[in-house]
Amino acid sequence: MTTQEVADKVMKLCSAGKFPEALELYSPDIVSMEAGAPPGQSRESKGLAAVKAKGEWWAANHEVHSSKVEGPLVAGPYFTATFKMDITFKPESRRFQMEEVAVYKVVDGKIVYEEFFYSM
Amino acid sequence: MTTQEVADKVMKLCSAGKFPEALELYSPDIVSMEAGAPPGQSRESKGLAAVKAKGEWWAANHEVHSSKVEGPLVAGPYFTATFKMDITFKPESRRFQMEEVAVYKVVDGKIVYEEFFYSM
Repeated sequence: MTTQEVADKVMKLCSAGKFPEALELYSPDIVSMEAGAPPGQSRESKGLAAVKAKGEWWAANHEVHSSKVEGPLVAGPYFTATFKMDITFKPESRRFQMEEVAVYKVVDGKIVYEEFFYSM
Repeated sequence: MTTQEVADKVMKLCSAGKFPEALELYSPDIVSMEAGAPPGQSRESKGLAAVKAKGEWWAANHEVHSSKVEGPLVAGPYFTATFKMDITFKPESRRFQMEEVAVYKVVDGKIVYEEFFYSM
C-alpha cells in the first residue's frame, strides 16, 4: 500500500471510532510519541503491544461524545491529520474538548511512527 | 490573531514564496526543528536570528522550480500543512522533489515552534 492508501484507511477507521482495527496497519516496530507524559513516565511507546495497551487504557478511561477527523495530507512517507474530540475522562468525570495534530510515517505499507501534538 | 488566522497568513505567504515575510509571524523565542542534521550539527534552531539565517542559507542554495502547499489543518494551538517542492540544490546542481509535513504551534498570535518531517 502507498502512503496515501494507508492514510485513507487509517482516517476511515478513526472516523468510525475503529481504533483497534487501525492497529492492523501498524508495524510491529511502531514508535508512538505523545505530546507529554505524567512525571516518571515516557512520552514514547515502543512496539505493537505497548501501543495496543495505551489504546486500550484510553478507550477504557474515556467516553467519546463526538469526534471529528480532518485530513489526511500526504507528503512522501509522511501524512498528517487533526482529531477533535468532545470527551469525558471517566475516572474524574471531567468533560473536555481535545484537539490534536497527528503525524504518521509509513514504511513498506505499515505505520512505523506516530506523533501527537496537543496542549497538556 | 487566532491559530487559524496565523495559519492562513503563513500558508498564503509560503504559497507565494514569501518566506522572509512569514518570519514576521514568528516569536523571538521560536524553536525550529528539522527532520535531521549533518553530522555534528543540531536539528534544532533557537531564536529568530538562527531561524532567519537558516532560511537565508536555504534560499541562497536552492532554486525552486515549482511548489505546492496543502493545508492548513488547525487543532487548538497547533496547525499542520504539507509542502511539495521541485528544487535544485545549487552547490551540487542536483534536482530533486522534496515533500514534507510541517507542524506549527502558535502562542499569543506568534509561531513559537515548528517541526518538519521528511525523509533524508
